[in-house]
Amino acid sequence: MPEIMVFAAEGRTLEQKRGLVKDLTEAMVKNFGVPADVVTVQIVEAPKTDKAKGGVLFCDR
Amino acid sequence: MPEIMVFAAEGRTLEQKRGLVKDLTEAMVKNFGVPADVVTVQIVEAPKTDKAKGGVLFCDR
Amino acid sequence: MPEIMVFAAEGRTLEQKRGLVKDLTEAMVKNFGVPADVVTVQIVEAPKTDKAKGGVLFCDR
Amino acid sequence: MPEIMVFAAEGRTLEQKRGLVKDLTEAMVKNFGVPADVVTVQIVEAPKTDKAKGGVLFCDR
Amino acid sequence: MPEIMVFAAEGRTLEQKRGLVKDLTEAMVKNFGVPADVVTVQIVEAPKTDKAKGGVLFCDR
Amino acid sequence: MPEIMVFAAEGRTLEQKRGLVKDLTEAMVKNFGVPADVVTVQIVEAPKTDKAKGGVLFCDR
Repeated sequence: MPEIMVFAAEGRTLEQKRGLVKDLTEAMVKNFGVPADVVTVQIVEAPKTDKAKGGVLFCDR
Repeated sequence: MPEIMVFAAEGRTLEQKRGLVKDLTEAMVKNFGVPADVVTVQIVEAPKTDKAKGGVLFCDR
Repeated sequence: MPEIMVFAAEGRTLEQKRGLVKDLTEAMVKNFGVPADVVTVQIVEAPKTDKAKGGVLFCDR
Repeated sequence: MPEIMVFAAEGRTLEQKRGLVKDLTEAMVKNFGVPADVVTVQIVEAPKTDKAKGGVLFCDR
Repeated sequence: MPEIMVFAAEGRTLEQKRGLVKDLTEAMVKNFGVPADVVTVQIVEAPKTDKAKGGVLFCDR
Repeated sequence: MPEIMVFAAEGRTLEQKRGLVKDLTEAMVKNFGVPADVVTVQIVEAPKTDKAKGGVLFCDR
């Protein structure tokens, strides 16, 4: 605890994910004063057929 | 914002998803008075091995 | 199943919520072909101190 | 209702999942006094590239 | 990890919650083979004005 | 999109939350290359009676 869930459309590289989870965790440590090793991050990726903005799927934009 | 997450077992067609996100977004616009383009929808699909009702996986029903 | 979670800032009336859950459920029935009574909707409201867009809390906008 | 979401790294067998959803559902029935058939469980699995603890992806640990 | 989120309507006692999180955690340990202290459980409670089944809010049922 | 949900026990100040959402958003912009104003963050706080680690509620630890 705390747990961070990131809901995103697919398409990021491993390098992008590696950097993201590191920086999200540091933001939690810095601001909430928790040790890094209690912070979990899960990226919940959706295919572009499964995510929409403005009522339009990302695969249709 | 607002964000809508739909947790469902896999097995819907692209056409079903396309219709769903359109209608969910319209429901948000109509009832909460927000512009469509601030509404995001993510469908979080699970394989039938990963979702259960009544304690029984969908792959076993 | 399916389950719909709506993540929103607080501030809607009961009438708005009543209309929203009705319309979201109808959207699910129409597009995914499920009976209404298997659809659950939960509105996860956040105080304006607990939700942000563009890195700025809603209480500060 | 209630809905249980389990966020986990991938790598469990069907047998493990089958046992988990059965036991989680029984825990809900026993403690919250609801009938089993209103309890849904969804396991939201992440590839080891998409989940981190302590700021480090599981694929890098 | 793993993280368990329970989405439920409000109205349970502290004793019910205490029993639930204990049993959910034991179910995870037994079936997924993880130590208890890496399992987190969060109960996300909704007022009866914020949760619906079959398109009808719990406060209206 | 992307949407970040932070599941945490209650007890942080407004200043801590203000700093957190700013830093989480910057982490998303830097690593995923999205503009800040498409990033939403919602902190889903639980009373200490509603969150557990190791099967024990935070109010009992």
